Amino acid sequence: MSNNRPIGFLDSGVGGLTVVKEAMKQLPNETVYYIGDTLRCPYGPRPVEQIKQFTWEMTQFLMKKNVKMIVIACNTATAIALEEIKKTLRIPVVGVINPGARAALKLTHNNKIGVIGTAGTINSGEYGSAIHKKSPKSDVYGIACPKFVPIVESKQYSSTIAESVVSEALAPFNGKNIDTLVMGCTHYPLLKPLIRQEMGEKVKLIDSGAEAVSEVSMLLDYYDIAADATEEEKQHEFFMTGSKKMFEDISHDWLNLESISTNRITLP
Amino acid sequence: MSNNRPIGFLDSGVGGLTVVKEAMKQLPNETVYYIGDTLRCPYGPRPVEQIKQFTWEMTQFLMKKNVKMIVIACNTATAIALEEIKKTLRIPVVGVINPGARAALKLTHNNKIGVIGTAGTINSGEYGSAIHKKSPKSDVYGIACPKFVPIVESKQYSSTIAESVVSEALAPFNGKNIDTLVMGCTHYPLLKPLIRQEMGEKVKLIDSGAEAVSEVSMLLDYYDIAADATEEEKQHEFFMTGSKKMFEDISHDWLNLESISTNRITLP
Repeated sequence: MSNNRPIGFLDSGVGGLTVVKEAMKQLPNETVYYIGDTLRCPYGPRPVEQIKQFTWEMTQFLMKKNVKMIVIACNTATAIALEEIKKTLRIPVVGVINPGARAALKLTHNNKIGVIGTAGTINSGEYGSAIHKKSPKSDVYGIACPKFVPIVESKQYSSTIAESVVSEALAPFNGKNIDTLVMGCTHYPLLKPLIRQEMGEKVKLIDSGAEAVSEVSMLLDYYDIAADATEEEKQHEFFMTGSKKMFEDISHDWLNLESISTNRITLP
Repeated sequence: MSNNRPIGFLDSGVGGLTVVKEAMKQLPNETVYYIGDTLRCPYGPRPVEQIKQFTWEMTQFLMKKNVKMIVIACNTATAIALEEIKKTLRIPVVGVINPGARAALKLTHNNKIGVIGTAGTINSGEYGSAIHKKSPKSDVYGIACPKFVPIVESKQYSSTIAESVVSEALAPFNGKNIDTLVMGCTHYPLLKPLIRQEMGEKVKLIDSGAEAVSEVSMLLDYYDIAADATEEEKQHEFFMTGSKKMFEDISHDWLNLESISTNRITLP
């Protein structure tokens, strides 16, 4: 059996595009529908109930598009809404935290793991729980980096401002001797060169979103809902609540797509 | 939520121990129950209906032991019975073919993939289907190696006989220019040094069973049924239909367990 319906990706903004990029690489037969709530981004500092509501609105939008699977390509939304959405929907729902935690445990040698994310993700403690459940003795150091998402969403991720913001935010890791750092926000891979520069070559950087794509790939097989390999070009669709131009600029930068189908929409 | 019930592994003989070895490494919190139908091994040359029946008998044995997940740690049984068993049981069931096929597609550069397995596995064409579904242009060369399993089950896997059997069996790959070889039988990793010697250093060897453990790990998280991390030693249990001594010798060789709990049983 095969299933050529799209996979739905949702994010508070453009960060989930880093997950889509990996999905297009690993799963070239699949059609991507993406929604980014760029108008209401960032989610990180918002109250839990509001994050839950916004995430449900995006989920319902994708469900109306008849997606076969939903990827919550946003750590904040995963931390706060994954469990409830997974329980409620009848299609598979994948988050980004468990894959990131599993990858960290696989790569760390000294069991000292850093996690960076939004305030919402770090305060939820979900990474610590996921890691400690498997490995109670691991040390997990979480740092909220509330300035990172606005820098990415405003396309300043290569600026000198970005450089000093990243440097300042990661300074508390000095002396912690972590050997693995989870980029626990799908926006952060856009800042990876600066994060790499700050942490040095020896610290392993984990892209939670890219890790999630392996889970998607496995579940497509497990539920026997992978798309057929065809010669036809995929009709990917990108929806956003904010500026089309900003979205197109970043997605062009990141996905190397000459032209993509973008649609500004209103939620709910 | 956590779940400390055992994971059940089944195989026609001792081959599945190569999967258990990987599971013990990747999933140290989990308890393993294993059944090997060593008395009726090999399954490879048997008729499809008989393989299906024997696999169901092992499945029912494990279900009575209250396992939380079943791993069909045998390519032949996966090829012939996975789909039916997965549809019937209410617990997750994992096979070894899809994980092996995914790994091959991830590692190959020239899309020329070799597969070795029992006659049952190769004749089923399941590897070819799994690979072509995702990548129709890949060349898949399957070779049945009916002599490999008896060599492993009779503990001759390091002998000079083994060396010439392996060399002869793999000769048809000459000139095929494959860059990736799936060891599509869980017995074959015990012959890996000889397979490596024959294929050369450049061909990537894929252990389908080890790949399946990543799927197990993911599904434990996905269904939220991973075991707690505790200090208690796990009470693994090994059941076999044939000689205890042979089983213990090979499992000692492979699992480096000083003493394991082995029980000879009768099926059905």
